[in-house]
Amino acid sequence: MKIDLNRNTNISLPKQIYQSIADRISSGLIEKGSKLPSVRSLSKTLKVSMVTVVKAYSMLEEDNFISTIQGKGTFVQSEKIMNNKDHDNDLISLDWQLSIADHLPRAQFWRQNISLTTKSQIWLSAASVHSSLLPEHLISRHISSFILKNPDILSEYGPVQGDLDLRDTIADYLKSSDISVSKNEIIITNGSQQAINLVARTFIGAGDIVVMEAPTYTAAIDVFRWQGATILSVPVDKDGMRIDLLLRLCDTYSPKLIYTIPTYHNPTGTVMSMQRRKELIDIAKNFNCLIVEDDPWREISFERNPLPTLKSMDTDGHVIYIKGFSKFLSPGCRIGTLVASGSILNRLIAAKTNSDLGSSLLTQKALLPFVQLDFMKKHLKSLNITLFNRRNLVLELLKEHMPSTVKWTSPMGGPNIWITLPSWLSAESLVFEAQNNNIAFLAGSTCYSSEPEFNHIRISFSSLEQEQLEKSIITLSKIISSFINKKNNIENIPIV
Amino acid sequence: MKIDLNRNTNISLPKQIYQSIADRISSGLIEKGSKLPSVRSLSKTLKVSMVTVVKAYSMLEEDNFISTIQGKGTFVQSEKIMNNKDHDNDLISLDWQLSIADHLPRAQFWRQNISLTTKSQIWLSAASVHSSLLPEHLISRHISSFILKNPDILSEYGPVQGDLDLRDTIADYLKSSDISVSKNEIIITNGSQQAINLVARTFIGAGDIVVMEAPTYTAAIDVFRWQGATILSVPVDKDGMRIDLLLRLCDTYSPKLIYTIPTYHNPTGTVMSMQRRKELIDIAKNFNCLIVEDDPWREISFERNPLPTLKSMDTDGHVIYIKGFSKFLSPGCRIGTLVASGSILNRLIAAKTNSDLGSSLLTQKALLPFVQLDFMKKHLKSLNITLFNRRNLVLELLKEHMPSTVKWTSPMGGPNIWITLPSWLSAESLVFEAQNNNIAFLAGSTCYSSEPEFNHIRISFSSLEQEQLEKSIITLSKIISSFINKKNNIENIPIV
Repeated sequence: MKIDLNRNTNISLPKQIYQSIADRISSGLIEKGSKLPSVRSLSKTLKVSMVTVVKAYSMLEEDNFISTIQGKGTFVQSEKIMNNKDHDNDLISLDWQLSIADHLPRAQFWRQNISLTTKSQIWLSAASVHSSLLPEHLISRHISSFILKNPDILSEYGPVQGDLDLRDTIADYLKSSDISVSKNEIIITNGSQQAINLVARTFIGAGDIVVMEAPTYTAAIDVFRWQGATILSVPVDKDGMRIDLLLRLCDTYSPKLIYTIPTYHNPTGTVMSMQRRKELIDIAKNFNCLIVEDDPWREISFERNPLPTLKSMDTDGHVIYIKGFSKFLSPGCRIGTLVASGSILNRLIAAKTNSDLGSSLLTQKALLPFVQLDFMKKHLKSLNITLFNRRNLVLELLKEHMPSTVKWTSPMGGPNIWITLPSWLSAESLVFEAQNNNIAFLAGSTCYSSEPEFNHIRISFSSLEQEQLEKSIITLSKIISSFINKKNNIENIPIV
Repeated sequence: MKIDLNRNTNISLPKQIYQSIADRISSGLIEKGSKLPSVRSLSKTLKVSMVTVVKAYSMLEEDNFISTIQGKGTFVQSEKIMNNKDHDNDLISLDWQLSIADHLPRAQFWRQNISLTTKSQIWLSAASVHSSLLPEHLISRHISSFILKNPDILSEYGPVQGDLDLRDTIADYLKSSDISVSKNEIIITNGSQQAINLVARTFIGAGDIVVMEAPTYTAAIDVFRWQGATILSVPVDKDGMRIDLLLRLCDTYSPKLIYTIPTYHNPTGTVMSMQRRKELIDIAKNFNCLIVEDDPWREISFERNPLPTLKSMDTDGHVIYIKGFSKFLSPGCRIGTLVASGSILNRLIAAKTNSDLGSSLLTQKALLPFVQLDFMKKHLKSLNITLFNRRNLVLELLKEHMPSTVKWTSPMGGPNIWITLPSWLSAESLVFEAQNNNIAFLAGSTCYSSEPEFNHIRISFSSLEQEQLEKSIITLSKIISSFINKKNNIENIPIV
């Protein structure tokens, strides 16, 4: 097992080993029922004392990740230990592959994705927009006529940095967010996920310190952990990232990069205040670090003018801005963009080259007319009216059907509502019952890079049709109520 | 400056520092005219002695990468030192960005790409197929009608692993290369470059040993170096990789991964013999390592049956097979595939998730009918007749116009001819004169992971129209002749 240990932090070695193994188990990268290496062998591999490994294993056992069977070894917890050999390729001849170490400490988004596509039909968990609200018919008509006139784009590698016309159009579009850049400062990516990935891979290595909000976007955690980053979590309150706590961390640590979703934050839906935005830019300047501003939901806004982007307040190239066009235009095209300047930009273009030699020209040309500001304004206007109504519907239903001990956020934009259960109730304990009702939600614990809180749920009101949305919110409320009632009943039994 | 030093190899520290800085200069990641850190400061950053840095700088100076100006410092060599400030963003306010270390030791394909797109019009360097030979009209008609009937694919995220129908069709298609896999063992990627990248990023970390052919595909070197791999180069002769030398290396080093292009090798066009294929599989079994078989050109074959793929001879999941569909179908769609099994496969799917959440459904559906075996057979038959004629034409022209001291390969497949100049003549010295004639070729030195040979040129006969091809080969031959004649004339002057 490959674990990158960092001996220059305040985080103890047992804790680091614990985190790494816990992540791999949560991600499904270590399968349930697998045998872990012996204490002696792991201590040898990692060059740490046996006491360190024993401590890590005890913590894992305490948190029910693993269990030790006397005389047999230490196993990953599972309802049916050693009874999960249902994979096609689980042949003895492939066993040698386990000796090939990998560098994937965590891939929880992957696991979440698998569970989504196989087990449930009603995805309260999908933070995407229902197809009936997207301009798929317009886009398809455009593609259909465009490609007949321009078959030559099928035989071309476009520029690595992205199609010039699209970059021009995006530069224009970004002006509506007060971001004034030229097409030379824009890189086209395969969705915003690739953009995050390019940044992480170019600038982050083992032990580099990355600051993230807690909670934050699951797949961004996966990517920074993949690079071996030491992640510092800064809690979010109703005004966004707690900059006061960040500042205190900066006294001890020297962050290289701060990843933030300041506007309609994922998963909580909150907005970073203007004051904090200014302070964050100041911190980046003072500590010479990069800010990655991930801005997926600014377009889905229920207020007239969302607060300005960090990028628009950036004078010295500290902010790398990421915008995906999958969410509110076309997931099937996978187009995103990365905005940066100076040598940071140059190095990101080199990284894009190494990664895939550039995005598909077809998908870039497919979206081109729809990224234009005129179209987007019209499209977003009607989309936002619908989603605002959906949001209000969900908020009313929650008020009506949820027990009083359950709380939630009321987002002013974006598709996400963050539900907080009583602290004793783990969202994961609801998953099974929800699945029985064909409902999938996002368990909040996957949104933490360490020390997860287990009593949160993220639901998204944008990906379902109205009827399904209503039904599923009521059902989910009932499931939660029944769990809370059961506990109350138990507490009410007098001890005699 | 960030340099990963590996203290557990036979390669000396000065040599490692030399290689790392030389790569960054060749890649353009350190711009010409830049000032390098002082000996004292670099020795401090890297925690090595000052003598080590002095040795590295001397080697760099000897090879004309840098020059020292007394009292001023050490600068990257440039025709016009400090006179390259033509970038839009070269503002003083961005200077702080240079303090952000990156993890990109080398990105030579990027530089090559930039020079291609800006300076020359006739690309003997592009190993792609001219658009007139690709089925762009058929594909465009398919897309045009398909998208009108199926606009819904624009609003869907497809499965991360790839569209099920496309994976099914590819599984079928691969049977023609004797590769029998199910759709579950196939991942769709954004071209083969992403496939190489996913493998490198998942399994290779600092100090892991990767074996590559010398010469090999430039952008694959970039990717493995990016991961901090220690690359061992094994020379190629007319029967492909020298397995005898590889075996000798394996006695000392323990390779984790062997990257090979066994069929119509890039850049030399050679084919690995059957005997060596068997031996290579044996080595992977005996040393428990992975083979990455990159197979871009099998389809462009001038013989009836190319030798079997390594993947078809693989019984235990040692071979990861990579096939791109850009080259002979549609560069504009950027579709490639990665074939693997067991836990190696699972970890690659997790990596694909982290990287971009899956490829575009639009491009996958666009290519679907054209990956079918029936179509492909017909398409390749006529394509191969044309390319075979082009190849023969080029070989004849070379014979007629090149000086007798120049040699070249006669490929039985693929688009590449590897030209070897007299050992004293560096391909890079021809670049300027070639550019004056609007011709771009690939200088062979970028195809080596270390210790480049400078007297090779790769030309590709597939991307030009016949007339341009003829003209450019004759011009290139004349340029080379004139360089050789000049030298001969100098040698012929009697010393008096």
